[in-house]
Amino acid sequence: MKLFSDELIARACKACHVQDIGHATIGETILVSKFLQKETGIEMVRMDQGSPSLPINRIGVRAEQDALEMGFGSSYPHAQGIPELCNAASRFVKAFINIDIKPDGCIATTGSVAASFGSFIACTQRIPGKDKVLFIDPGFPIQKSQLRVLGIGWESFDIYNYRGAKKLKAKLEEYFKRGDIAAIIYSNPNNPAWICLEEEELAVIGKLATKYDVVVLEDLAYFCMDFRKDFAQPYKAPFIPTAAKYTDNYILMLSASKIFSYAGQRIALCCVSDKLYARQYPSLDSRYHDTGTFGVSLTSSILYMITSGCTTSTQYGYAAMLNAACDGNNNFREDVIEYARRAKWMKEIFCKNGFHIVYDRDVTQEVGDGFFFSLGYGNMGSEELVRELISYGISSISLSTTGSEQNGIRACSAMITQDMYRLLEERTEQFDIDHRDAR
Amino acid sequence: MKLFSDELIARACKACHVQDIGHATIGETILVSKFLQKETGIEMVRMDQGSPSLPINRIGVRAEQDALEMGFGSSYPHAQGIPELCNAASRFVKAFINIDIKPDGCIATTGSVAASFGSFIACTQRIPGKDKVLFIDPGFPIQKSQLRVLGIGWESFDIYNYRGAKKLKAKLEEYFKRGDIAAIIYSNPNNPAWICLEEEELAVIGKLATKYDVVVLEDLAYFCMDFRKDFAQPYKAPFIPTAAKYTDNYILMLSASKIFSYAGQRIALCCVSDKLYARQYPSLDSRYHDTGTFGVSLTSSILYMITSGCTTSTQYGYAAMLNAACDGNNNFREDVIEYARRAKWMKEIFCKNGFHIVYDRDVTQEVGDGFFFSLGYGNMGSEELVRELISYGISSISLSTTGSEQNGIRACSAMITQDMYRLLEERTEQFDIDHRDAR
Repeated sequence: MKLFSDELIARACKACHVQDIGHATIGETILVSKFLQKETGIEMVRMDQGSPSLPINRIGVRAEQDALEMGFGSSYPHAQGIPELCNAASRFVKAFINIDIKPDGCIATTGSVAASFGSFIACTQRIPGKDKVLFIDPGFPIQKSQLRVLGIGWESFDIYNYRGAKKLKAKLEEYFKRGDIAAIIYSNPNNPAWICLEEEELAVIGKLATKYDVVVLEDLAYFCMDFRKDFAQPYKAPFIPTAAKYTDNYILMLSASKIFSYAGQRIALCCVSDKLYARQYPSLDSRYHDTGTFGVSLTSSILYMITSGCTTSTQYGYAAMLNAACDGNNNFREDVIEYARRAKWMKEIFCKNGFHIVYDRDVTQEVGDGFFFSLGYGNMGSEELVRELISYGISSISLSTTGSEQNGIRACSAMITQDMYRLLEERTEQFDIDHRDAR
Repeated sequence: MKLFSDELIARACKACHVQDIGHATIGETILVSKFLQKETGIEMVRMDQGSPSLPINRIGVRAEQDALEMGFGSSYPHAQGIPELCNAASRFVKAFINIDIKPDGCIATTGSVAASFGSFIACTQRIPGKDKVLFIDPGFPIQKSQLRVLGIGWESFDIYNYRGAKKLKAKLEEYFKRGDIAAIIYSNPNNPAWICLEEEELAVIGKLATKYDVVVLEDLAYFCMDFRKDFAQPYKAPFIPTAAKYTDNYILMLSASKIFSYAGQRIALCCVSDKLYARQYPSLDSRYHDTGTFGVSLTSSILYMITSGCTTSTQYGYAAMLNAACDGNNNFREDVIEYARRAKWMKEIFCKNGFHIVYDRDVTQEVGDGFFFSLGYGNMGSEELVRELISYGISSISLSTTGSEQNGIRACSAMITQDMYRLLEERTEQFDIDHRDAR
């Protein structure tokens, strides 16, 4: 039996101005979910929003409080960020990714969303006619919404059937050969599917990016959160796998939100390769009269025009956390590995009750446990699964909203604590009893 | 005699990648100014950057530190801002402007630059063909740079010859009649000229905005800083003059940067009138699939896609400062009136030595003393004046970079402390001696 009637859900959607919960955005889903909880007093299992639920990193908090006490927040920050943060970022990418980026190329941004927003603009304006973005889907829906705001076109494909160097290379060249792709974007580990591109795949991306002059926008929001390996030892292998090893055409986006549970403070870094930073583009110069150096245009003519720098105290906080990580005094992996524990038992409960993991493998191994995972139930369509699950008090988003062509949902482990184990088990069992004919 | 030779200045410009200091941007001027100071050890009189130099507001600092201590910075903030800030903003506009805006319409932004950036997008996308911005110049150059980033067209005129209701009305209708103006923007008090639009002028702007369906973007960065009157008594006349009294088509931008000396923390509010907030635009709906309600599109489909909300602790800080101001416990006007004292003696020194105030009057009275003022010297052209002044160790920006058609420079009083009185006097006297034939 369902917890919520179709009528109640219809009323919730209406009250929240949501057309169809089956393909609702994350924001819309949260609204409906909260409405149902408030209306009925029944606790929801909230697998919808990818927001940290663990305590904020205290190294950052202390450094922010000190910076505020010193009065550092009164005057405008530098366009690229305070020197302490730019230097710390340069150290951090060396320590954990083993690549060299000068501090000037490590630009502070108001979250990775601002980094991708600014990068989309710079990349698509640098060469006339080369003005589209290619998404390796499934992906983060906000990035497509950003292009909708800007009126920039895009292409996308679901990587599900194109894993491994050979298939991926052929697929990417299909797009790159047309000549209008300015940038390619993906997150690794992947939001929503938690797949990780493997070394041979990153090599293909990097090499083709050079060949076709495409900028790789690599979103490392879940840094060191592929818990199958321990990437979090500074200056020691294994290092984070990256396409940056195979091309100079890259921008890495480093968010503090997940790894330091710092989402509310809105801070990230947009790390531009030294060579890309220094490249000259007449199109940027003629538009901005700024000499057209890519990194300078991105920093001073684009990002600075959007927020005029980032919150000063938060920059001090982020710098302190990055430096402590490089010094081996900020074991952020340990701080967030709880998400993997939660994902593990959640996946067990679901799979015991007829569900399956949709994106279940990388090229050579099974996907790991972490912040997100993908779930399907028999052949049930994505929208139907979202609609049915919410009737049983389990809130999620449809894989179709992430550019996936597979049937299923995205589940986030962040907000599901140990005390909800029984609740999830009961609801999932009941769901399976009621839907067994759809398996 | 000049302090710096032409050769040295040419070298400084080259080192800083600045083509011509005469029409350099603020950022470029700062670079050259710092270069000269570092190279020679001679202190510059820095009238270039409009950055606060007074101590940060401690009410905000304490509230931020407390919010950090409570761990509030871990998860994503609401798209429109934390309820505490939205509520405080709604109170604040009532207390000091005597207008009513619901909390939902008071959206937290990463500085007023993010507010104008998002507003430009929403205003120019709401009605097909109505897609240009009109600037009442002189104005803040960054706002035009934002349109350059976005590829949005604009018109502008220098208000110098169009003061008073009658002339202003005729001039505005010239543009509005064409039908393609989506929004009009100005700051009051004005950056760079410190003129203030008077009631009859604001009435014209408001009434024409309604008649021609143009959105008024009123930048109140220097709130209560027209020190000729005391606007800073909560819930008591005189209230801040505003076009919002005369139209429902408005967005007010309230920055914390200047009035609370909070520029480094990057926080502002984008306050949308209740009626504009609720208006439905099919163009916005078809672009964003969000029902096309103006305020919702601006908040959730545009601003949220750029920064995903603002720094949480800073929102608590801003809320505390606004609430304290409404309670009569945050006398921010007293905190910043020092800028007027500085402007007063700076203007006296300049005027004693052959300079004049370019924008010297509003309709009925002389301009006041505050954060900025405009200076001319005889008929000397703007670029030449900037170039000559920097040779005498006085750094400023050309009025031509602000859309002004008058000869002169913008001077900022913020960074000029009492101990620089003699320095400024000596340099200005020497300048006058050397240039008397140009008067």
